[in-house]
Amino acid sequence: MSGPAGATPHASSRAAILDVIRAAGTISRVGLVRATGFTGATISTVVRRLIDDGLVLETGRAESTGGKRRVLLQLNQSSRFAVGVHLDHAGITYVLTNLGGSVVARMSRAGVGTDDPPAVVARMATEVDALIDGAGIDRSRILGLGLVAPGPMNQTSSMRLVPPAMRHWEHFRLDRELLAATRLPVVLDNDATAAALGEHWSGDVGGTATFAAIYMGTGIGSGLMVNGITFRGASGNAGEIGHICLDANGPECWCGARGCTEVLAGPGAVVAAARADAALAAEAGLAADAAEERPRRLADFAAVTRAALRGNAAARELLENSAGHLAVAARTLANIMDLDQMVLTGPSLAIAGSIYLPVVQRELDRAFFSRATHPVTVRLSRSAATAPAIGAAALVLQAELVPLREGLRLPGNLADAEPGGVSATR
Amino acid sequence: MSGPAGATPHASSRAAILDVIRAAGTISRVGLVRATGFTGATISTVVRRLIDDGLVLETGRAESTGGKRRVLLQLNQSSRFAVGVHLDHAGITYVLTNLGGSVVARMSRAGVGTDDPPAVVARMATEVDALIDGAGIDRSRILGLGLVAPGPMNQTSSMRLVPPAMRHWEHFRLDRELLAATRLPVVLDNDATAAALGEHWSGDVGGTATFAAIYMGTGIGSGLMVNGITFRGASGNAGEIGHICLDANGPECWCGARGCTEVLAGPGAVVAAARADAALAAEAGLAADAAEERPRRLADFAAVTRAALRGNAAARELLENSAGHLAVAARTLANIMDLDQMVLTGPSLAIAGSIYLPVVQRELDRAFFSRATHPVTVRLSRSAATAPAIGAAALVLQAELVPLREGLRLPGNLADAEPGGVSATR
Repeated sequence: MSGPAGATPHASSRAAILDVIRAAGTISRVGLVRATGFTGATISTVVRRLIDDGLVLETGRAESTGGKRRVLLQLNQSSRFAVGVHLDHAGITYVLTNLGGSVVARMSRAGVGTDDPPAVVARMATEVDALIDGAGIDRSRILGLGLVAPGPMNQTSSMRLVPPAMRHWEHFRLDRELLAATRLPVVLDNDATAAALGEHWSGDVGGTATFAAIYMGTGIGSGLMVNGITFRGASGNAGEIGHICLDANGPECWCGARGCTEVLAGPGAVVAAARADAALAAEAGLAADAAEERPRRLADFAAVTRAALRGNAAARELLENSAGHLAVAARTLANIMDLDQMVLTGPSLAIAGSIYLPVVQRELDRAFFSRATHPVTVRLSRSAATAPAIGAAALVLQAELVPLREGLRLPGNLADAEPGGVSATR
Repeated sequence: MSGPAGATPHASSRAAILDVIRAAGTISRVGLVRATGFTGATISTVVRRLIDDGLVLETGRAESTGGKRRVLLQLNQSSRFAVGVHLDHAGITYVLTNLGGSVVARMSRAGVGTDDPPAVVARMATEVDALIDGAGIDRSRILGLGLVAPGPMNQTSSMRLVPPAMRHWEHFRLDRELLAATRLPVVLDNDATAAALGEHWSGDVGGTATFAAIYMGTGIGSGLMVNGITFRGASGNAGEIGHICLDANGPECWCGARGCTEVLAGPGAVVAAARADAALAAEAGLAADAAEERPRRLADFAAVTRAALRGNAAARELLENSAGHLAVAARTLANIMDLDQMVLTGPSLAIAGSIYLPVVQRELDRAFFSRATHPVTVRLSRSAATAPAIGAAALVLQAELVPLREGLRLPGNLADAEPGGVSATR
């Protein structure tokens, strides 16, 4: 990361320096000059302000390398906090993270289902209060709330959220209503992109890493990080591997295309196939009424997975078939981005990741186009269920880099919100 | 683009400033400060050197905006030149471009076929001499030679070139031999990536554009530009849409996978299907001997295209079927990168682009995942046949940004070349 020369320290240098301190753990001022390309004077000024604001601490000195021993800096982890919310049909996941992105409290509640938007917002406000109070954190130290949900997002409408069978949310100003109900600045984003950011902040992947987070929740997607920065594309919807074509003659998908990864391999397809097999449905204890399926999809998917792990061959076959399709989609993504790292994440892979991981890795080992040049390493996230919520909180933490009195300057900023929306699901 | 602060002007600031001048056409020093983020002092020092080296000219003054009228700078287009070579089985294309990337001479010659590598290199050296002499350019003003060919490239082996049925090239040090034969610095790269760079330098796409060049030559690939910079991925092989899976049960591809775009839709598939249709083969005048097919593939593909354009329904059906598969691959690429611009390019699309363009555009209009948010605009390159060679020359021009006495610092740099290689084709 390099900064503009000769400029007085401004919001983006503060952002860059704070992020380098976060990623480094501890670092000296000289280290910051090297890592950011800013002048010593800029570093000195910005660091002094960060210390005055309580965001950064001086923490002893590095080993001497001959000259004067250098003072080390680190984040003051507990100086600020952020709320991350992952909203999905099947459930709402809340996390409270400190400035370093570590989770200090978490909570899962019922999903959105067909509830009225105002009722859901009122409930979320109550649940956010419970999260903050339960952790004993003073509200003045909460920077804001990040909320992520399935795409596609509409940037011209400030990424208002109009997902799944949530068409009745289409004209609801979620960002504005959530701000009113929680009195916290709100940022909105795509859940798969947030999951990638969550993996990045969870520290399992290097600071300037390029990788994809293969995401499976109620649907399928992916989030892309390029050199430590989220790759968003023209409208914030990059990474949509759930809707790439694996079979031109395959079944029709809700998105209008045929043979998409999601319609072939998503949890909905697995659960529908399991329900069609009476013996398996009974063994797994699936809901009898298909009309009830969607809100229960993740629970039913978990039930099929448990059956497979207990040794039910039909359940395992369904999941391995799904994994086979997901693996082909992952290979397409790896071929196009020429990736060498992938993480499997999201609520469904938190449940069934151990079945999916070997299938995806085998496909990449066997058929990744540049396999003679380098392998693609796939691993299972250690925070697969909460990565999107952690990423949602990280969006807010990144915004700290811009002083709050200027307003949050991230996607989903309230300042330039306009009505409009797009229907979709994941 | 922003530069490191407080540093003395070095190679990369020179590179950045020269590229901004190139992209802008004419620009003042103040404009350069704004566009690059460098200090006025840095701009002043670097520009003085660029003028001393003859690379940049002062060219009158901008309209006054109240204060002193500003001196405008522009590239001295004819101060330096570069050779671009696109090497393929079916043909070798040469271009000579000036410093601004404009083609001042071009030439096409027979492809590589099964010729011995040393014989091909000797021929290329003669042909490069003819290109330079024919244009009447003094050799001292030639910066170097860029050579591009099908991937995958192997960066650990300095991108030595081991393409197609060119397995007998595997242990041949093309970069070193070409340097010895032409006495020009040599850079090597992937042809589809070079095609995207060629489109960018040809000026049809904006200076900081993000777009994909969908490439069809002997095979299928794509090159990706993100914010005006080539996106290469972990090993320089990003964009490989020729080997993404469109049909898991499709025919086996040479790459080891099934149902790849290339095996379903590439010129080889079109020509093979045309040859299998006796009436069409006769009408199009295809070579009778299939063993002769590969080196003639592009000529045969052109013959099938001419038949289609003359109104032969069987030929048109074959090409539209190919276009349909390419369109699905383009949609996958657009979904993953969330693109809003694509260019169809490469020798095969130079021939048949008018048939492919509407099919690709229709597919994206119909089924691009984020179509409710924004469209994807597809256009046919105006330099489809020469874009890879222009991009090859542009690689050399970019290297001017690093003084030649330090050696070319691009992929394919001779300095750190090591033996090794990967077999592949496009």
